[in-house]
Amino acid sequence: MSRSYHMSPKEFRKWGRAVIDWIADYQERIESFPVLSRAAPGQIRASLPANPPEKPEPFGRILADVEEKILPGITHWQSPNFFAFFPANSSGPSILGDLLSSGLAVQGMLWATSPACTELETHVLDWMADMTGLPEAFRSTSTGGGVIQDSASSATLCALLAARERATAGLSNKRGCDGRLTAYTTAQAHSSVEKAARIAGIGSESLRLVEIDQNFAMRPESLARRLEEDRQAGLVPFFVCAAVGTTSAGAVDPLEAVGRVCREHKVWLHVDGAMAGTAALCPEFRPLFAGLELADSYCFNPHKWMFTNFDCDCFWVARRKDLIDALSILPEYLRNQASESGAVIDYRDWQVPLGRRFRALKLWFVIRSYGVEGLRHHVREHVALAQQFAAWVRDSAEFELAAPAPLNLVCFRHRGGDEANQKILDRLNGSGELYLTHTKLDGKLTLRMSIGATRTEGRHVQAAWEKIRAAARQL
Amino acid sequence: MSRSYHMSPKEFRKWGRAVIDWIADYQERIESFPVLSRAAPGQIRASLPANPPEKPEPFGRILADVEEKILPGITHWQSPNFFAFFPANSSGPSILGDLLSSGLAVQGMLWATSPACTELETHVLDWMADMTGLPEAFRSTSTGGGVIQDSASSATLCALLAARERATAGLSNKRGCDGRLTAYTTAQAHSSVEKAARIAGIGSESLRLVEIDQNFAMRPESLARRLEEDRQAGLVPFFVCAAVGTTSAGAVDPLEAVGRVCREHKVWLHVDGAMAGTAALCPEFRPLFAGLELADSYCFNPHKWMFTNFDCDCFWVARRKDLIDALSILPEYLRNQASESGAVIDYRDWQVPLGRRFRALKLWFVIRSYGVEGLRHHVREHVALAQQFAAWVRDSAEFELAAPAPLNLVCFRHRGGDEANQKILDRLNGSGELYLTHTKLDGKLTLRMSIGATRTEGRHVQAAWEKIRAAARQL
Repeated sequence: MSRSYHMSPKEFRKWGRAVIDWIADYQERIESFPVLSRAAPGQIRASLPANPPEKPEPFGRILADVEEKILPGITHWQSPNFFAFFPANSSGPSILGDLLSSGLAVQGMLWATSPACTELETHVLDWMADMTGLPEAFRSTSTGGGVIQDSASSATLCALLAARERATAGLSNKRGCDGRLTAYTTAQAHSSVEKAARIAGIGSESLRLVEIDQNFAMRPESLARRLEEDRQAGLVPFFVCAAVGTTSAGAVDPLEAVGRVCREHKVWLHVDGAMAGTAALCPEFRPLFAGLELADSYCFNPHKWMFTNFDCDCFWVARRKDLIDALSILPEYLRNQASESGAVIDYRDWQVPLGRRFRALKLWFVIRSYGVEGLRHHVREHVALAQQFAAWVRDSAEFELAAPAPLNLVCFRHRGGDEANQKILDRLNGSGELYLTHTKLDGKLTLRMSIGATRTEGRHVQAAWEKIRAAARQL
Repeated sequence: MSRSYHMSPKEFRKWGRAVIDWIADYQERIESFPVLSRAAPGQIRASLPANPPEKPEPFGRILADVEEKILPGITHWQSPNFFAFFPANSSGPSILGDLLSSGLAVQGMLWATSPACTELETHVLDWMADMTGLPEAFRSTSTGGGVIQDSASSATLCALLAARERATAGLSNKRGCDGRLTAYTTAQAHSSVEKAARIAGIGSESLRLVEIDQNFAMRPESLARRLEEDRQAGLVPFFVCAAVGTTSAGAVDPLEAVGRVCREHKVWLHVDGAMAGTAALCPEFRPLFAGLELADSYCFNPHKWMFTNFDCDCFWVARRKDLIDALSILPEYLRNQASESGAVIDYRDWQVPLGRRFRALKLWFVIRSYGVEGLRHHVREHVALAQQFAAWVRDSAEFELAAPAPLNLVCFRHRGGDEANQKILDRLNGSGELYLTHTKLDGKLTLRMSIGATRTEGRHVQAAWEKIRAAARQL
């Protein structure tokens, strides 16, 4: 063979160590960066050469550019002072599990294309069902089973598609949608529910926003009424998406009551526990999930609050047949004896894309490295920190809680109105010392303190509260 | 703070080196494994403990389990003797780029959530447009732009959704599909086209399979006729998916003629170059892509044949507005000044999920480490090896080519019929010495020799040919 441009295993050892050390250094100095990147639009691009290099460049130069050109454009999600959106936390074992997945670089679309990739995933999702107390039906040993999706958005889409096909006996897949299907959620649900309704040809006008109570949770009696009305109007209600821990406010829909309505009306219930689902590791938080046995599907994201790198959404269905019927296509070039024997799972039929990474490795590494005990410990710690923060807010004269805060998200606001809250937010985020985001609740600008970065400790939450109060004093 | 179960940066350095070394060792000994895993269904699961561990386990034990329990269930996609399906090749720089992405662990859903994540992606996709000679409209500096999707399946779905909304002026997103939209491809297209038509509420019966010629390529005159017929029947043709390098046979649809028909009928043309797209790095292969300037969208997968780990599908649109109009939803909790200024790209509006990894890092690392020169060199080498293999088939008495082989995929078969070919396939794959898969062309079982693993050299292809002939002699 003529010249090779590949990195040899020997060079890989050398540069691999350099990258590992870079990441360890990054972890050690992460508090030194402004949490929210200060880059101006176009600034990072302007620092890059206009044209791709014709000749190979030494790896050391590339790594130096990560430091010089990329870092200024990073918003540090792994900072212990990151309280924005939701945690997208990570950990050593997860990073290394993901690294091994890159090194093996197998495709898990079929069982046969790497049996371990499929079987470890099924196994670890059964473990997760154990660890979070999920109903029996969600286990692969029963009628259901779990799969790793890239995100809760994709899980919601898959659930909605399975529901669509179940409601139309497979006709939507064949003949397309006909405009009569209707879906239900609340205005507090994640935007991915509306996105899924659009994508699946249902249409956002056929997604009903069910009334909420004073705690931003779905009113089951309103759901029942809307289902009745639509059915009487000749429409076909088929899908309800409820949430444990809505994105905006962390609201918990009453699953038991909602589930009974869904059963009565024979509509699919999908439960989105994207962030809050991790809390079910701890028995004391499981009452929030009561009624989950009435759900047809459920998901939560270890890539949010369980120390596992994105992408890792765990998605379960109570009857895997519903999901597979909706998503399976078998071209000749994918036929194989194992699939045709029926003895194996082919995860390509459980998701939108065909290809898939070996994502179960990182989740397996995390569960084993922390042990269930370690995961519970850190989740409890984050919840305790959030409860402490909520207590400070409750006891303060100038701030108020904007919603109940049962877990790790605290929605609060300054009593001075939207303008005051916007000023506080801009001042804090501009300082680089922490990063908070906002939402609107009851029409009012509301600050969200979301606690769950891997390294967030009491001192970070305490400092954040002091900075918030200092920003308020400067109004 | 009380007890921590986290892996410290110091431990991360230690175990990170161990994993890097494990991967380098794996690269060095990869030819010692049977290419196709010999695990029986359930075997890998049976080796794992039924219950998750309550207590933390030492990292060394987990790594030992990868070796003992996982490796036997791996089908070695990185083996130089992997000739199945398509290459899903990888490289040192790509693995390390992905590792850095895991270490930074940022979310790139909005520009503001890490400006570098968005800007590097836009920039590198413009580089890729340069490197592969794409039309001007596909660049971010023009009306279009590129984005990294997880797979060509998702790119096809996004293209189809953008086409659907353009054809219905946004009404499908609002009111849902009404059963009148029709889409077009050939029976040789990837199964993801039918899957996308199902998902999007179009229905598989509304996906027309256009006639093909003797080379398995779309007949433009048949496409024109079907478009006419459907329009006269009151239907709404809106989407055509053509391919450069179909999955089964590597067929090349005539983009120029197909594109003219699409323009005339005002339907969206999406071009899927999943594997073959890499060939456009080399000017001598670009004639296969002539007519791409008539396409509305295009994708190919560096995670197939450009040394970049899955997931990395490059997807371009000629008018980004079409894509964003189809996929954008803006809830309050994602609002921010940068987005509202219009000066930045928010890639959440270019894809199905909300969350996204920093995937551009690995592609940037690959392009810089190889240089365009290095990438071209290895692509040319793979094509030359495939051409050599095709010549051997052509010159042999017992085998025949089943389709033209312009690039790195050779479809061939033994002249002895389906049973003979099945026996050859089973014998070869059972030997563990190489892995080939099959398709059906003209109703006949056909073997596919797909060349493009990172380390495949002349000696591997030669040995494969000898083993194929030996298997035939044993018939």
